[in-house]
Amino acid sequence: MKSYRKELWFETATRRAYINISTQIATILQESGIKEGLCLVNAMHITASVFINDDESGLHKDFEIWLEKLAPEKPHNQYNHNGYEDNGDAHLKRSVMGREVVVAVTDGKLDLGPWEQIFYGEFDGKRKKRVLVKIIGE
Amino acid sequence: MKSYRKELWFETATRRAYINISTQIATILQESGIKEGLCLVNAMHITASVFINDDESGLHKDFEIWLEKLAPEKPHNQYNHNGYEDNGDAHLKRSVMGREVVVAVTDGKLDLGPWEQIFYGEFDGKRKKRVLVKIIGE
Amino acid sequence: MKSYRKELWFETATRRAYINISTQIATILQESGIKEGLCLVNAMHITASVFINDDESGLHKDFEIWLEKLAPEKPHNQYNHNGYEDNGDAHLKRSVMGREVVVAVTDGKLDLGPWEQIFYGEFDGKRKKRVLVKIIGE
Repeated sequence: MKSYRKELWFETATRRAYINISTQIATILQESGIKEGLCLVNAMHITASVFINDDESGLHKDFEIWLEKLAPEKPHNQYNHNGYEDNGDAHLKRSVMGREVVVAVTDGKLDLGPWEQIFYGEFDGKRKKRVLVKIIGE
Repeated sequence: MKSYRKELWFETATRRAYINISTQIATILQESGIKEGLCLVNAMHITASVFINDDESGLHKDFEIWLEKLAPEKPHNQYNHNGYEDNGDAHLKRSVMGREVVVAVTDGKLDLGPWEQIFYGEFDGKRKKRVLVKIIGE
Repeated sequence: MKSYRKELWFETATRRAYINISTQIATILQESGIKEGLCLVNAMHITASVFINDDESGLHKDFEIWLEKLAPEKPHNQYNHNGYEDNGDAHLKRSVMGREVVVAVTDGKLDLGPWEQIFYGEFDGKRKKRVLVKIIGE
């Protein structure tokens, strides 16, 4: 069994952002030389997400509106978590969107459906954060 | 390390549906000959879900009502995504229910709890869609 | 390829609870002797969750309030599932929080970000329930 590990770093200019990382993950998979296996991609921070969905800007606006409805950022003092912090909403938003994805590796490629794209979802940005890629297989 | 890959195809008669695929996944695991490992089951489409919950029709009605409350289908024009499409709600519903499950394989069997059943959740049906099963192990 | 399996048992005093199980998972990983691979941790019951977030009591209060808003426990008869049961809400809450996490294993350790802690989330407690830990790798 082979394994391969790599980190991606992000520092978004805005508090919230959706970044398509599919190409970067595909490159890391190529570096790994692994042909058959599983590829885990996870946010290493608890106010960010890795998820799979469509690369369509209208949908990303819908995510923004919808997540703000489910777990509004403001007023900051509505959250018990926000004593010294202001990111209570980000912990909840990330819970909806998920921490991680596991993608099959087949024939040396990410085995994704026709519209599946891998995203980094940032909910408390303007600081350095990491995504972990861990691939195991042969 | 062994690996095994198979696709399941669906075309539901209704826009939304929950289909118990546990038996099909168990059969694929048997075909694979893998005794110890991990089994990834994921929707290959971004308006569908694979999740684990109870096979109880009352609960499935509750899912329908609850997801319609969290992300209503209509009016279609409430979603930015719905320029040429009408499935903005389906992308959000699938985000709540999740894209994938990873199930342990132990002694050649799906290592599930007493009530755990694997479901395909369709949120934009009446078209052909796929689920990917990828098993790795020994 | 090696694999290792272990169950954790819980019986919470309250209907809902969040229990940090990171240390227990780290101990199980050590027992396994696996240095590189993937560690699956999943609730074996469909009204419970395993998720990763911050070990901060204010945040856990926020989860309680937020999940009660998204899927209130009472009145019990609002859920079709609650014919003989009263835990319809718990199935929905667990859907938001997720069934499982997959954690990378690197150098014999759980490869977690600085604030990542693994939690057992109970939404219908006061009974015995299990979490499954399955580690594969080398």
